[in-house]
Amino acid sequence: MTAQRLVVIGADAAGMSAASQARRRKGPDELAITAFERGHHTSYSACGIPYWIGGDVDGPDRLIARTASEHRSRGIDLRLGIEAVELDPDRGRVRTRDADGSYAWTPYDHLVIATGAVPARPRIPGIDADGVFGVQTLDDGEAVLDGLARDGVRSAVVVGGGYIGVEMAEAMLRRGLSVTVVDAGDQPMSTLDPDMGALVRDAMEGMGIEVVSGAQVREVLTGGDGRARAVATKDAEYPADIVVLGIGVRPGTELARDAGLPLGEAGGLLTDRAQRVRGHGEIWAGGDCVEVLNVVSGSLQHVALGTHANKHGLVIGTNIGGGYATFPGVVGTAVSKVCDVEIARTGLKESQARAAGLRYVTATIESTSRAGYYPDASPMTVKMLAELGSGRLLGTQIVGREGAAKRVDVAAVALTAGMTVEAMTSLDLGYAPPFSPVWDPVLVAARKAAAAVGQP
Amino acid sequence: MTAQRLVVIGADAAGMSAASQARRRKGPDELAITAFERGHHTSYSACGIPYWIGGDVDGPDRLIARTASEHRSRGIDLRLGIEAVELDPDRGRVRTRDADGSYAWTPYDHLVIATGAVPARPRIPGIDADGVFGVQTLDDGEAVLDGLARDGVRSAVVVGGGYIGVEMAEAMLRRGLSVTVVDAGDQPMSTLDPDMGALVRDAMEGMGIEVVSGAQVREVLTGGDGRARAVATKDAEYPADIVVLGIGVRPGTELARDAGLPLGEAGGLLTDRAQRVRGHGEIWAGGDCVEVLNVVSGSLQHVALGTHANKHGLVIGTNIGGGYATFPGVVGTAVSKVCDVEIARTGLKESQARAAGLRYVTATIESTSRAGYYPDASPMTVKMLAELGSGRLLGTQIVGREGAAKRVDVAAVALTAGMTVEAMTSLDLGYAPPFSPVWDPVLVAARKAAAAVGQP
Repeated sequence: MTAQRLVVIGADAAGMSAASQARRRKGPDELAITAFERGHHTSYSACGIPYWIGGDVDGPDRLIARTASEHRSRGIDLRLGIEAVELDPDRGRVRTRDADGSYAWTPYDHLVIATGAVPARPRIPGIDADGVFGVQTLDDGEAVLDGLARDGVRSAVVVGGGYIGVEMAEAMLRRGLSVTVVDAGDQPMSTLDPDMGALVRDAMEGMGIEVVSGAQVREVLTGGDGRARAVATKDAEYPADIVVLGIGVRPGTELARDAGLPLGEAGGLLTDRAQRVRGHGEIWAGGDCVEVLNVVSGSLQHVALGTHANKHGLVIGTNIGGGYATFPGVVGTAVSKVCDVEIARTGLKESQARAAGLRYVTATIESTSRAGYYPDASPMTVKMLAELGSGRLLGTQIVGREGAAKRVDVAAVALTAGMTVEAMTSLDLGYAPPFSPVWDPVLVAARKAAAAVGQP
Repeated sequence: MTAQRLVVIGADAAGMSAASQARRRKGPDELAITAFERGHHTSYSACGIPYWIGGDVDGPDRLIARTASEHRSRGIDLRLGIEAVELDPDRGRVRTRDADGSYAWTPYDHLVIATGAVPARPRIPGIDADGVFGVQTLDDGEAVLDGLARDGVRSAVVVGGGYIGVEMAEAMLRRGLSVTVVDAGDQPMSTLDPDMGALVRDAMEGMGIEVVSGAQVREVLTGGDGRARAVATKDAEYPADIVVLGIGVRPGTELARDAGLPLGEAGGLLTDRAQRVRGHGEIWAGGDCVEVLNVVSGSLQHVALGTHANKHGLVIGTNIGGGYATFPGVVGTAVSKVCDVEIARTGLKESQARAAGLRYVTATIESTSRAGYYPDASPMTVKMLAELGSGRLLGTQIVGREGAAKRVDVAAVALTAGMTVEAMTSLDLGYAPPFSPVWDPVLVAARKAAAAVGQP
């Protein structure tokens, strides 16, 4: 028997999870696995980069979950510094370019596209100046740290107030810089409703971070040495010895698009539930380059998160390995923090519920992480959306301190199960004074939402 | 219109939640509310007593959620120091005895029985000696603190290795005593499987707590002054300037039993889903004196937990107030800690699954509370039971450190929803490095359990 040939493009979470799982199920005599990675690192935690830059985590080695040599020792032919430049689905082959510019075609029986995401980069004057950094790759992390090590670096502007933006604001603050976040939205954390985002803003301002909302960055101003010195909006200039770009990402699907593979409205690859690219039985895709079903809205969306990428990889590898697995979609859970302020959301926020054609009630409550009398009981705000009539949970947002964010998991499971907020009020959640008030904050919110729906 | 008469027996969580909710829905012209309490405190957190004794919490006032005068100001006729001594369901009246020994009958239209639980007290020589304490009431708490304040108090024996036992072991340790826990079970925390209980034992021993398992206390030995000086088992004596009884509770249902109300095998009142006592349309019961349905095993059980008592009270008060609410049962969730070791369980442990006629597989994994590279990532062990064939989650146990216990809530919601462990592997739980590894420990356990069930 000749071994089948699996080719993986992109050697990060989705790609290498797929390769590893396929290898676990099929030995080299059954399946030959080749993985191409244009960068020089594999299986690293991009989500950890802000904490490395902030000084909480040693890097970059600690951010690498599995090294190239570990993958190779498991029988995966991993080739770093090799870029895939063309797909030929009709003939089942991938064209690559290596570091010295020579090209080659590699045939496959199974192809995994795991080309990740591309950070957004505004096309404005000065964007390529010395001192302007992205934070997606380990090389980006090294570059920011080199930038911080220079003499006279005192101020940072973070462009974007989403997850990466607020995490990088924390990192810059911890490095002792004065920090300004410039964001186009009305409030930071536009994945939350504005009333909840306002709580994040207040907390960030309390930490000494300047938050400029509703502002487009027009230009990065440079000094005589060509280095960034400030960021300009229509109305003002903000000093910036360092500029960090954290304005989100888009699916990295140029290769797939050029090959005629199906893309969705957000630019991500469209797959079936087994993570096969639609209409292509032998091409699989997962991670930041695909669109996922949001089971609450019923719509596809692009979510760049390592946890989904790992699940996609596991599903793909299981299927290629001869097993059976599917990815049922997401409910839109995300957690983050800025210093000691924890932020969490799942399901739909108000504008998303409206866009999905859903009518809803909202309930917002304040409670504490532990029994009110227990030391370090910290306040948190929980907002819940429930569908009119049915009372089905639609979404939950939490802003608080220690012990707040992971409570969103209760709502994530309830969303997955299609629970009503009335049913949630009876949930048997863990209670003891060090862990929760006798009514967990999520239950308090569910009670208020159930009353708003119209409890008997 | 004459106001209806609601009489509540027992003015703690269940009773006063019921009274408060009924009052919120019906004013004094519609509903007259009288509550009898034989003790001198109302609406207090018994669960907080170990933390008060340990010195984490000021007491006893901070443990009182709502004072008698607050209840009275809301139009509830709360009578402290009055004991209900007889029920007469046929004529709809309650007989009480007041502090000076005089008796009276009070008629009711609705009766709420919230008589709580009675701590178990072994009948052994010396059990009533000076220096032997229970920890159920605020008066108990004061007594323990007085005992600790005496000169020469250096050693404590805690009888019982369950929730109260381990929490009191922590409290005694924090007060600087040398602590021995004497427990009849094979391992402490018999609500866990022995393999998980062994982790708790190891952790307790690491803190310097002596854990004596499989041992019955035979006698409390006293000195010439009549004060406790040691605890004797069949094989040994353990020095004990203080003895704390933490061997569990039974439903306090003498009054109900004498009145012929229906009791279950565990001695608790039997109710319908609206918390009406079975066969008695005008008598309601909730809290530590009732049995609850465990929806996983399908059996009734007695669970003394403030969080259930509060829910029962809300359900009863809603129904008496003219609304509609039910209590669907429990899944058996409980969380606790000993110093920095967190303990959690939900659903069924192995012996409970067998007793319920269920066949199962188990999976035990080790993971961390945060991304492995993030500061303070702490190890945790998660054990999961899943039903053979169906793959339905049956139970989850967790022993770890900071960030471990409340993860059990994910399993509690999954149990409520009847999820399979395979479905759980796709749950969209919150991920960011400060909060979780990219695969949350609960997901890792679910993956292993799904494989044990027989994933394709």
